[in-house]
Amino acid sequence: MNSKMVLTMDIGGTQSRVALINDKAQVVKRTSVTTEEGEGYKKVIATIRDYFSKPELDSVAGIGIAIAGLLRSDSGLLLSSPNMAGWINVPIRQIFSDEFNLPVYTGNDASLAAQGEYRYGAAKGLENFVYVTVSTGIGGGLMLGGEMYIGADGYAGEVGHMTIDPGGPQCACGMRGCFEAMASGSAIAREAREKMASGVSSIMIDMAGGDPGELTAELVERAARQGDALAKEVMHNAAVNLGLGLSNLIVIFDPEAVVVGGGVTKSDDLIFAPARRVVAERAGCYFQKDVPILKAALGDDVGLIGAAAMVLDSI
Amino acid sequence: MNSKMVLTMDIGGTQSRVALINDKAQVVKRTSVTTEEGEGYKKVIATIRDYFSKPELDSVAGIGIAIAGLLRSDSGLLLSSPNMAGWINVPIRQIFSDEFNLPVYTGNDASLAAQGEYRYGAAKGLENFVYVTVSTGIGGGLMLGGEMYIGADGYAGEVGHMTIDPGGPQCACGMRGCFEAMASGSAIAREAREKMASGVSSIMIDMAGGDPGELTAELVERAARQGDALAKEVMHNAAVNLGLGLSNLIVIFDPEAVVVGGGVTKSDDLIFAPARRVVAERAGCYFQKDVPILKAALGDDVGLIGAAAMVLDSI
Repeated sequence: MNSKMVLTMDIGGTQSRVALINDKAQVVKRTSVTTEEGEGYKKVIATIRDYFSKPELDSVAGIGIAIAGLLRSDSGLLLSSPNMAGWINVPIRQIFSDEFNLPVYTGNDASLAAQGEYRYGAAKGLENFVYVTVSTGIGGGLMLGGEMYIGADGYAGEVGHMTIDPGGPQCACGMRGCFEAMASGSAIAREAREKMASGVSSIMIDMAGGDPGELTAELVERAARQGDALAKEVMHNAAVNLGLGLSNLIVIFDPEAVVVGGGVTKSDDLIFAPARRVVAERAGCYFQKDVPILKAALGDDVGLIGAAAMVLDSI
Repeated sequence: MNSKMVLTMDIGGTQSRVALINDKAQVVKRTSVTTEEGEGYKKVIATIRDYFSKPELDSVAGIGIAIAGLLRSDSGLLLSSPNMAGWINVPIRQIFSDEFNLPVYTGNDASLAAQGEYRYGAAKGLENFVYVTVSTGIGGGLMLGGEMYIGADGYAGEVGHMTIDPGGPQCACGMRGCFEAMASGSAIAREAREKMASGVSSIMIDMAGGDPGELTAELVERAARQGDALAKEVMHNAAVNLGLGLSNLIVIFDPEAVVVGGGVTKSDDLIFAPARRVVAERAGCYFQKDVPILKAALGDDVGLIGAAAMVLDSI
């Protein structure tokens, strides 16, 4: 077995993925687990111990961890994660290093995804781009002048928490009108729930088995495709807000492109296309040029692959 | 006379400054002129020819131009400038090079101001900071990893045109709710005018000689200091909006500090202090740390000095 195997994980707000990756950054074996609150890293460790054989784990030369949240670059301490309740002050690098007795490298999931797309995906050859991932939350990775920019403490790229409407809805972070609170998957689900609670009729209530608490962005999208007026309105609002947020990033960074990943890339006509129109109207008009909004190419594996690239570069 | 004299100018929305600067980046002689619409650069050239003697101009080894607007880094073409009507597609580098037969270096005013503060001012020793200038408009300069980041075409740092409220007032750029339209000097004057037009009473109408068109941010500030309720409200709104915009930049860049320059630095208690409180509540709370909001140190000369540094580094 190749001695340069890498164990990587991508710990996100909803799901944590784990994979064994070879030195060509190809996924050899993978699994996933629901991200639990509190000491959820214990579940991730248990999953790794269960799923991979001892010889497989013995072949691992290093561990790469991509995680959604504020991660100190110096210590690998996870300060907090708005979409992972209870993951507060978790010394994630230390925990995995103690558990597996291997070198552990950590990075913000969106920063590592940007690195993955730069090395192997949609952003090959781009020296200046912003990567934005839109799923449960919204995260960002900044490739500037061919280098990842992570800021003073490693927190840079928290684009999901820029305010795009001070009167907007409450965000998981506690602020109001964050980009994430207005254009993410959870924003879509929340707006649909709120509008239904205020009495707007929709096929979504039946689709959710009568329980608005069961509404998800995927369900809203399906309802929109079936012509449900409320669902269409909610999807459109999210798309416009996505376009607003991307326009902000374009006027700030003047990037060669913006690369968008996450669940939203699956809603091409409902989200991507209208968001692109807003960008063309706003940032495009201001800069008198079209800044391409590219779809991420590496799909759900992007965090795993970016984390593997980080480890392979280091060991 | 020192052969390494530099002629620099800082062409802004309201005023253009011109100076002769020595190789220690000290201003030796200076003047200024109101920035005119259309072919306003002709007035700048005439001012230089009038004000400086032939021996002075003969001593100049290079020209540095800081300008407010979208300036292509490759050609020195000014694409447009939201606050300088008619300055559209002006080949500013070419014009000054033809006129003075000297090497001409151009840069966005806020980027060069950031460079000036980094070399000689409030940002000495900071490798990662955002410079924000708040006067007629709002501009930004990005020092990231010890290098100026100017983006793909040189337009990066247009932080004044990020949307912070999609329902906000119209901006000079044509969009709505831009940071500049909500926190700049012109935003302050406009909000005061609009509120007075809608019948709110204020001492400002007398201060402006009965003509709301004569209202300026300085006048609003003076009225606020005299206790005028409307003026105080307008100043407070601008301060809160400034805090919002700065918070956005902090969550995006995780900088060591934000350096704020421009006219606003003179309104410490009315603008700076409340803006700092908003930043502490929003970005500070999210990152669980205080990101210092520093006042620029070089005052009105910052663009001139930054432009001189650019020329001195190049010739």
